[in-house]
Amino acid sequence: MAVERMETAKVAVVGFGTIGSGAVKLLLEQPERLARAVGRKVELVQIVDPDLARPRGVDVPKGMLTDDLRRVLDNREITTVIKLIGGLEPARTVMLKLLESGKNVITANKALLAEHGAELFAKARKAGRSIAFEAAVAGGIPIIAAIGQSLAANRIESIHAILNGTSNFILTRMEEQGTNYASAVAEAQRLGYAEANPAMDVDGTDAAQKLAILAHLAFGARPNWRAIHRVGIDAIEPADIRFANELGYTIKLLAVAELTNQGLELHVSPTLVRRHTPLAGVREAFNAIHVVGDAVGRVFFHGLGAGQMPTASAVIADLIDTLVGRTAITFKTLALWAEDRNAPVPVRDSAEVRGRFYLRLKVEDRPGVLAEISGILGRHNISIASVIQHETDEPAGGVVPLVIMTHAAPEGALDAALGAMGRLPCVRPGTVRLRVRD
Amino acid sequence: MAVERMETAKVAVVGFGTIGSGAVKLLLEQPERLARAVGRKVELVQIVDPDLARPRGVDVPKGMLTDDLRRVLDNREITTVIKLIGGLEPARTVMLKLLESGKNVITANKALLAEHGAELFAKARKAGRSIAFEAAVAGGIPIIAAIGQSLAANRIESIHAILNGTSNFILTRMEEQGTNYASAVAEAQRLGYAEANPAMDVDGTDAAQKLAILAHLAFGARPNWRAIHRVGIDAIEPADIRFANELGYTIKLLAVAELTNQGLELHVSPTLVRRHTPLAGVREAFNAIHVVGDAVGRVFFHGLGAGQMPTASAVIADLIDTLVGRTAITFKTLALWAEDRNAPVPVRDSAEVRGRFYLRLKVEDRPGVLAEISGILGRHNISIASVIQHETDEPAGGVVPLVIMTHAAPEGALDAALGAMGRLPCVRPGTVRLRVRD
Repeated sequence: MAVERMETAKVAVVGFGTIGSGAVKLLLEQPERLARAVGRKVELVQIVDPDLARPRGVDVPKGMLTDDLRRVLDNREITTVIKLIGGLEPARTVMLKLLESGKNVITANKALLAEHGAELFAKARKAGRSIAFEAAVAGGIPIIAAIGQSLAANRIESIHAILNGTSNFILTRMEEQGTNYASAVAEAQRLGYAEANPAMDVDGTDAAQKLAILAHLAFGARPNWRAIHRVGIDAIEPADIRFANELGYTIKLLAVAELTNQGLELHVSPTLVRRHTPLAGVREAFNAIHVVGDAVGRVFFHGLGAGQMPTASAVIADLIDTLVGRTAITFKTLALWAEDRNAPVPVRDSAEVRGRFYLRLKVEDRPGVLAEISGILGRHNISIASVIQHETDEPAGGVVPLVIMTHAAPEGALDAALGAMGRLPCVRPGTVRLRVRD
Repeated sequence: MAVERMETAKVAVVGFGTIGSGAVKLLLEQPERLARAVGRKVELVQIVDPDLARPRGVDVPKGMLTDDLRRVLDNREITTVIKLIGGLEPARTVMLKLLESGKNVITANKALLAEHGAELFAKARKAGRSIAFEAAVAGGIPIIAAIGQSLAANRIESIHAILNGTSNFILTRMEEQGTNYASAVAEAQRLGYAEANPAMDVDGTDAAQKLAILAHLAFGARPNWRAIHRVGIDAIEPADIRFANELGYTIKLLAVAELTNQGLELHVSPTLVRRHTPLAGVREAFNAIHVVGDAVGRVFFHGLGAGQMPTASAVIADLIDTLVGRTAITFKTLALWAEDRNAPVPVRDSAEVRGRFYLRLKVEDRPGVLAEISGILGRHNISIASVIQHETDEPAGGVVPLVIMTHAAPEGALDAALGAMGRLPCVRPGTVRLRVRD
C-alpha cells in the first residue's frame, strides 16, 4: 500500500465546529498516542472552515486554518480528511469533491448518510477510496464496529436503542425532577444538550436517521428514513411519567429494528420500558443500544452519544483505522449501499407493524365519553387491555386525563383510530401515544 | 496478499469441545453468512481432537474429524486455525506448532495468554502470522476490539469489570433467592454454569487472568496475573448479602484496573457496588465491562461472557477478521507483548493499593471484643467508618457477626490486620473481606 511507504500520514479537518475542534484537539495535543496507534507520525496539515475568527479552545498553528477547500483538494499529500460539516448541503458537495480528489473521508453526519448514503458510497467505490462513519451513530459507543465486524458471525435479530441524547436528557429530567417538558427543554438548552431549535431531536428525526443507518448495516435493509414511523416526545407531560411509574415503567425514546417473518419492522417512539432493565437505566444524555444476535444472544452498549470529545473519540478511531488500512478492508467487505449487495431485507410497511400502546387523551369529564372512545378503538379492531382514570380534584375546564393501554394492534389502525378520536368533540388536542415494551 | 488470490479460504478447528462445537456449527451451518462477510467461500477442512467418538450435536462430514494434528500442520492450504484447547499444555505446544507451520491462530484461552502471551506473540511475529483472541475475555462482548481499536484515541483511565459469569451467577442466586453459597454453586453446576471443580472461577483466578490481558491491551502494562491481589467469593454468606442490601449495595466480583500517579492498580475482589448502577444490574451468568477513557468518558458493555454460541460468535468474528486481513494489521500495530513496545506502565505493588473495605468477622459475644479488633485496625492505621452489630436472637455457639466498614486503607495493611485478627482467640475462622466501590 502506498500509505505504508510514507513516513508521515498527512490529514486535514474540514469543518471546525464543536466536533471538529475536538478532533483537532486530539490531533494536535496527543501526537505520541496517535503515532503509536498508527505506526507513524500523523500530521494535521490543514483545517478548513469559513469562520476564521471564532475561538475554539485549541491553539492552531498559523496558516493551518483556511477558508479555501482547494488547499485540501489540491494537496496530494493529504490522503485522509475528517469532514465534520452538519446538514445536507454543502456537506454532500464537499464530500463528493473530497472523494473525487482521492481522499478517504471520515464523517459524523448521520443525516447525510441516511439521505445520500447510496450516492456517496458509490462515489467512494468509484474513486477507490473509503468512507468511515463510526461517529454518525451513538457518538462514543463503537456500535458501527460492533455490528459491522465484531458481531459479523450473527444474524442480527433486533436492535432496541436510545439514540438521541437530547430527548433522553429531557425525559430523565422530567422523571427525576418532576419538571414539565418546556422547563426540561430549557435546561437542556442551557447545558448545551439541546440546540436553540431542538425539533429534529425531540420529534424523532435524528433517531430515525440513525436507525436507518443501523438497519442497513445490521440487516442489509434499505429503508427511507422518512418512511420510518416516528413519534416525538414533545407531547409528553409529567402525568405520563407518573402513570408510567405507577405501572412499573419508565419512558424512553426508543428506536427499534426487529426482524420478523413479515420483514424488518422499524419505528421510533417514546416507549414504556420496564424499570430496572438496562435500557430503563440509561439516564441524562447517554445513548444505549441493545442488540440481539442468533449466536451471541443479548449484547448491550452504553455511553455518550454526543458531545465534543466522545464524538471526537469515534472520529479519531476511524482516522486510525483508515490510516492503518483496516477501513479499506471493511469498506470493501461490507459493501454498504452497493447495488450488487445481496438482496436487501424488505422493510415492513409501518402501518402493519404491531405494538402495544399507551394512550392518554384529554377528554371532557362527562358520561358517555369512554363509550365513544372505546367504540372507535373497537371499530379499528384494537382491544383495550386496561383503562386508568383517576378522580381529579380540579378538572381543568372540565377536562380530565384518560389513559388506555391497548393489546397488540397495528400502528396503522392506531393512527386511524387516533385520527377519528381527534374529531370527537369530547376529545381535546394533545393526545399522547407511547409504545409499550415488555 | 496471497489469500486474495484463493477462491476458498481453508480453515481448521483444533479442539472439539463445547466452544469448538459451537464454532464448527457456525462454519458448517452458516456458509452463506460467512462467505458474505469474508468475500469468498470459507471451507472447514479438518477438525482435530483426541476424542473421535463423543457426540457434539453437530453433523460432521466423514473424514473431517481426526486425532492427528499433522493433518493440519502439513496441509499448506489451511491458512488459519481456530485452536480451542483449554489449559496450558498441550495448548501451548499445539499453538507453537501451528504458528511454526505458518498458520494464523485464533484462541479463546485466557490462561494461556496470561501465562505465555509473550512467548506466543513473539513466535507469531517471527513466523509472520497473527494471533486473535476476542473470545478470551468476556466471550461474546467485543471488548478486545473495543479497547484495541474503537477506543484507540483515548488514554484508558480505568476498567471495572465482571469477567467471571460463574461467580456472578452464584452471587445473583444468593441475592435473589436467599440461598447459601453451597446451594448456589450446586445450581450453577446443574445448569452447566460451573465446572465440577469451580475453584478457578470462584477464587478469582479466571478473572485475574482476563484482567491481566485487558491491562496489557488497555494500558500497556505487563502484570504477572499471579501478582494481582485476588479475593474469591467462597466465604460470602447470605448475611453479607443482607448487610450489603441494607447499606444500599449489591455484591459483585469485580476485576479492576485503574491508572493512578503511582502506577496501574489491579485487583480482583467481591465488591459492594451501589444498587441501580449499571454494574449492579448485571445478573445471572452475564459479564460487563465499564471503561473510562479521557476522550470518550464512560462506556459500558454487557453481554454473555461464556457459553457455547456467544463464545463461538467471538471466535468466528476473529476468523472473519483474520481472513479479510484486518487481524494482520491489528496484530502489527498493537504489537502486544513485543519487546520493543513502548515502556510499559508500571504496575503498583498490590500491598499499596488503597480501598475501602467491608469486613465481617465471626466473634465471641462478650465484652471487649470490639476493643481488641478496633485496636488491631488502629495499629495498622486503618480507620473505621462504621460498625454494624445486630442483636442476635440465637448466637450460634456464642458467636455473632461483626461488620466493620473501613475508610480507605492500603490492601497490605488490611492483609496484615486480618492476619493479626485471625490470631485472636475471640475471632473464629471465616472472615469475609469485600471492597467497597462508591
